[in-house]
Amino acid sequence: MNSVPVPEPLLPEPTFYAAPDAAARQRLVDTHRPTLERAVETLRARTHWSPYPEDPAAYGTDAEAEGERAFHALLDKPFPLDQPGRDGTVGPLPAEGGEVSPYGFGLGISYPHSDPEALLAGAEAAAGEWRQAGALVRAAVCLEILARINARSAEFAQAAMHTSGHGPVMGFHAGAVHAQDRGLEAVAAAYTEQTRLPARALWTKPLPSGEPCSMEKTFTPAGLGTALLVGNRIFPAWSGYAGLFASLATGNPVIVKPHPAAVLPLALTVAVARDVLTAAGFAPGLVALAAEHPGEGLARALAVRPEIRIVDFTGTTAFGRWLKDNARHAQLFTSTTAVNTVLIESTEHYAAMLDNLAFSLALYSGQLCTSPQNILIPRAGIRTDLGRKGHLDVVADLAAAVTRLLTDDAFACDLLGALCGPAEAASAELAASGALGPVVLAGRTVHHPRHPRATVRTPTLVALDAARPQDRAALAHARPGPVFFTVAVDSADDGIALLHTTATTAGSLSAGAWTASEQVEHAVTRACADAGVMLSLGMTGDWYLTQSAVYSDLHGTGANPASDHAFCDGAFVARRFRTVEVRRRV
Amino acid sequence: MNSVPVPEPLLPEPTFYAAPDAAARQRLVDTHRPTLERAVETLRARTHWSPYPEDPAAYGTDAEAEGERAFHALLDKPFPLDQPGRDGTVGPLPAEGGEVSPYGFGLGISYPHSDPEALLAGAEAAAGEWRQAGALVRAAVCLEILARINARSAEFAQAAMHTSGHGPVMGFHAGAVHAQDRGLEAVAAAYTEQTRLPARALWTKPLPSGEPCSMEKTFTPAGLGTALLVGNRIFPAWSGYAGLFASLATGNPVIVKPHPAAVLPLALTVAVARDVLTAAGFAPGLVALAAEHPGEGLARALAVRPEIRIVDFTGTTAFGRWLKDNARHAQLFTSTTAVNTVLIESTEHYAAMLDNLAFSLALYSGQLCTSPQNILIPRAGIRTDLGRKGHLDVVADLAAAVTRLLTDDAFACDLLGALCGPAEAASAELAASGALGPVVLAGRTVHHPRHPRATVRTPTLVALDAARPQDRAALAHARPGPVFFTVAVDSADDGIALLHTTATTAGSLSAGAWTASEQVEHAVTRACADAGVMLSLGMTGDWYLTQSAVYSDLHGTGANPASDHAFCDGAFVARRFRTVEVRRRV
Repeated sequence: MNSVPVPEPLLPEPTFYAAPDAAARQRLVDTHRPTLERAVETLRARTHWSPYPEDPAAYGTDAEAEGERAFHALLDKPFPLDQPGRDGTVGPLPAEGGEVSPYGFGLGISYPHSDPEALLAGAEAAAGEWRQAGALVRAAVCLEILARINARSAEFAQAAMHTSGHGPVMGFHAGAVHAQDRGLEAVAAAYTEQTRLPARALWTKPLPSGEPCSMEKTFTPAGLGTALLVGNRIFPAWSGYAGLFASLATGNPVIVKPHPAAVLPLALTVAVARDVLTAAGFAPGLVALAAEHPGEGLARALAVRPEIRIVDFTGTTAFGRWLKDNARHAQLFTSTTAVNTVLIESTEHYAAMLDNLAFSLALYSGQLCTSPQNILIPRAGIRTDLGRKGHLDVVADLAAAVTRLLTDDAFACDLLGALCGPAEAASAELAASGALGPVVLAGRTVHHPRHPRATVRTPTLVALDAARPQDRAALAHARPGPVFFTVAVDSADDGIALLHTTATTAGSLSAGAWTASEQVEHAVTRACADAGVMLSLGMTGDWYLTQSAVYSDLHGTGANPASDHAFCDGAFVARRFRTVEVRRRV
Repeated sequence: MNSVPVPEPLLPEPTFYAAPDAAARQRLVDTHRPTLERAVETLRARTHWSPYPEDPAAYGTDAEAEGERAFHALLDKPFPLDQPGRDGTVGPLPAEGGEVSPYGFGLGISYPHSDPEALLAGAEAAAGEWRQAGALVRAAVCLEILARINARSAEFAQAAMHTSGHGPVMGFHAGAVHAQDRGLEAVAAAYTEQTRLPARALWTKPLPSGEPCSMEKTFTPAGLGTALLVGNRIFPAWSGYAGLFASLATGNPVIVKPHPAAVLPLALTVAVARDVLTAAGFAPGLVALAAEHPGEGLARALAVRPEIRIVDFTGTTAFGRWLKDNARHAQLFTSTTAVNTVLIESTEHYAAMLDNLAFSLALYSGQLCTSPQNILIPRAGIRTDLGRKGHLDVVADLAAAVTRLLTDDAFACDLLGALCGPAEAASAELAASGALGPVVLAGRTVHHPRHPRATVRTPTLVALDAARPQDRAALAHARPGPVFFTVAVDSADDGIALLHTTATTAGSLSAGAWTASEQVEHAVTRACADAGVMLSLGMTGDWYLTQSAVYSDLHGTGANPASDHAFCDGAFVARRFRTVEVRRRV
């Protein structure tokens, strides 16, 4: 039994492509309109809200076990996805493109490989009916997709754990409910933007002749064309749903090209979307999966196709640059590598600050795009509520806070998750060896009680000095895995300048500062405004620098090299459609 | 005496760069806020409104004469503009880049040429204070600039006539008041978009621990960087003000690179903007004029500078493509060549239709970007309220309507304006020679009573047949000057298909249709939605296909090759700034 109401799927599972069904579409609108309107209003007010409970218990006592069973039922067999133009199979063996869980086992799932021509043609053929359906029906269909995904959140959490290496809580949050929030946020923003102009307006001008001239006008949003989502490995759903649903809600078909190591979360998403679209009488080709063979380079091949008018991408800086150079005909939304900085200048909550920061470092082994990497602390130490602390005291106290947080192995495994791959493990080992600088805290390997082949490592802290050129060079690059730098700076101003430079050159998605000085707060705020990076001030308690509250926080600014957009502002949706006016003399 | 209230300039003419002046800024906000709010509301409702009267008489009985005197006072001397980094002079002789009026005389004005490095540095230095001023102050400053321009509308009208060749009414409208409308529209849209998020919000989440977690958040819009406006010759103000004011209102300095043949309208604009900015305590470098030497290629040199983050351009398809290929770091807003089509399928207002269309062809000699070029008429003729009309009847009746409209030379001169340059005149002569096809109406040269050296030509109509491949090729290209094609098509469907093809391949800014058939109306509406072109249905009376009602009509869609944006939707302003969030644990 569910303890809070969870949206129920509304339509029977379809077995064939149904004809347009006005009644089914109206039911979807009636059901989801209140949620849509609440989301629109929340986006405006930036308050806390979500229709998707983040407590797994809200989904019923059996939900987690059912989700795990559903996930296991997917393993070691072909993924059930019926797409046109099938011309091969991806997986199930790793050499064939099959996924391997960061927890240490092959998933054994194979996916259909489709001829890109068939996917593009299917998308084009489906677009006209989707455009004509209007913004409200499109939003309702998107919310039905999200509701069905929400009902299977525990299964999506398992899929996230065993592709991205999330711990169970993060799998349930970032892999399921918070990703759904990102999707709903995008749908609400898209709906707001598409209804900004009235659908119909009467314009009357008194002409010099005295006779009034009246025109009846209609304004109809029209999608740009087909969109391409290039998924990432770390958060395929959380990073991908905003673009996927923004494109779909604004009238564009979407081809989903998942990261080869994290296909399952997006394959499940595509399957649900196609079912809902079919049941509502739309062509399922509006959402399609483009799984790729090892080394195929399908994202590049698709991105340069003239049919592709929108590309959403989260991943490497190199591929982001390649897209800018080569997919010039498309609207690009790219989010690439970030190097995030925090400044500890002074605090009235010393212990709470350390605990908060330690948690931010440990969470998912620092593999989040918002994880802080560089922790700047003035060389002369800081003022605190527990008296003056020297630079080395702060570093040692932070290391102790991390160690304390991760004493219990089972808790540590859940919080750290598994390292994504060999690059993260090698980076951790390199840092622990002292090659990057003096080791302040050497990460340890944790034995995972259920998954003995998972690589779980606690954070390694390395001490750098901003006055040393080689250290400045080191901190300017993103380090994979649980590797963090404590950095001695000459002063608060020196630290603020370094934070600014890092954001404008390397790119940052988040910055943090702890300071009890109004002057320093003003200076760091101004530096962040200038560098275009979001700033979190004085974080303590159970809310962290790494977290982004959907419907309230903007994720990314688009104003520094780490990303060219934000989840989710006007530009994120306005660039995905155009408006066609018809005016008539009346 | 003014017969309706015209906004008065508020601030004394400045003689030096003043310190920030909070009181002056507050006065601007108090004065202009009602106009801003009315514009915001009008943009939402798409009704008729303007604060800038379009009847010259509203500006007082002396206003026109005063404007003409002010214009003549500018001739044959250096333009008064004090900019840093001056390194040369443009003009006054034509060989030195001096402007020549299409009415047949050199203006004799010279402009300062500035080192682009100085302009870029001045813009960068001014940006921080402009960002911090906030959206409301920026909007108020922009409205003050527009109010001062509005008070000098008659002078701007003269400047427009003698650079673009407008007739007096079009000079006053497109060169002055309607351009001001476009500017205000952009400011209102920019203000709406920048205030979509609250400046400040409180977010409270009940945490699992039971303790509520509260964050205070601020959201601050920040411009992208420096913007470049590349002006055109046909409508430097009307086409340029939207981008200029959208960039400025969203926090970006703007460098204005005018078309070499139409510097004056934008030089006047820049001078007013710099005066207002200075008086409000901002650095005048926020708006600067980049006049260029003949053949200098300054637009290219500026567009590839990393400091330039936004480019607005109206002009050739070739330069639009060059920008897309080379200014990939910038947000581009380009509007290029358009080939506009109308379909005459049937009508219940035959005579009114012909008069309306004839006016659209004659207005400014068809040199508007929205002027129709191809007039499709079914081979079998059309049904009308005056009985069935054969194809040749319609063509002949249209030719007669054009001839009738332009019988009076003085009226014809005012309506036609002067041809912009030799290309337009050569095109008219080529068409009249029969080289493009059978001449249905041969344009005649009209003697201008006041300006004997002006080239004034009435429209030439050439008969083409869509069934002939060489005719289809001819109609797919934009013809400069007063050259129009009547085109025989097999059927309404054939015509609609041709309209669609022309829009999607050559690019269109407007389409028109006259039909009494619901079925044909439905089909042409659907074709225009698919091709992404605005459609005007059944135009009669004193309102024309070529016209765009600011605050109500969208100019351009951004959905076909003629332009990548619209005046003025969310995307037009949302792409010019980002939002930086600061959140603080409370």
